Amino acid sequence: MRGKAPPKQRSGCPISIALEIFGDSWSLLVVRDLMFKQRRTFNEFLSAEENIATNILSERLARLESNEIIEKHQDPNDARRYIYRLTEKGIALAPVLVEMILWSAQHETTAAAPDVVAEMTAHKGRFLLRVRQEWARIKLP
Amino acid sequence: MRGKAPPKQRSGCPISIALEIFGDSWSLLVVRDLMFKQRRTFNEFLSAEENIATNILSERLARLESNEIIEKHQDPNDARRYIYRLTEKGIALAPVLVEMILWSAQHETTAAAPDVVAEMTAHKGRFLLRVRQEWARIKLP
Repeated sequence: MRGKAPPKQRSGCPISIALEIFGDSWSLLVVRDLMFKQRRTFNEFLSAEENIATNILSERLARLESNEIIEKHQDPNDARRYIYRLTEKGIALAPVLVEMILWSAQHETTAAAPDVVAEMTAHKGRFLLRVRQEWARIKLP
Repeated sequence: MRGKAPPKQRSGCPISIALEIFGDSWSLLVVRDLMFKQRRTFNEFLSAEENIATNILSERLARLESNEIIEKHQDPNDARRYIYRLTEKGIALAPVLVEMILWSAQHETTAAAPDVVAEMTAHKGRFLLRVRQEWARIKLP
């Protein structure tokens, strides 16, 4: 853990600890953008259709970074801009997000593409492998 | 959907929709208690080591019920008491919780029992089947 020490945990329960890190409405949307939507910059996250507010986005990016789920690098073409990337710990959240997609697609009315959901369901391991391979190909600036 | 109409969704993204339902620090702890800890009543949820406040617990139980993740039944032995149970939609969250446990156990310091984590990792399908079988055996009052 870099930076300031994390606050005392509510309990040692792994679910509770995970929720203390990303148990809010927004953090996993940033992870989603990095994992599935090729968004990498503050303005790209801001452009997501859920309309996250700039102050919430700033706070969530800082929290995700302090929890080592994302890392940021200065854009070599624009020193005022950062490019974000999932860490190994961040890409390891892929199975959590995939299970959320499958649950939501089955139990709620969503815009998930049925063919993608069917592919995820039938070949979950292959889908996760491809997500990780695409992540590994992302070049750091 | 019973009760009042849900608020307008931020987007059709299945992850966003799931987060609007349980994207907070507490809702999935109640699901955890029902799924893995045989807690079934308000006071049992209140006794969880994370020390949830009564007003937050009341609000989350109502929200989980309106989203049809849990259902409640009057206790035949005590008319003032309700007994809660996961619905089919609620027990279907087991893969999400299991992936959160595995991620947390691998990337954070938790109190998760290493043998249980190893069993979950090696035989995830069997573990999930057993969780569902135990849920199916719970008798409604």
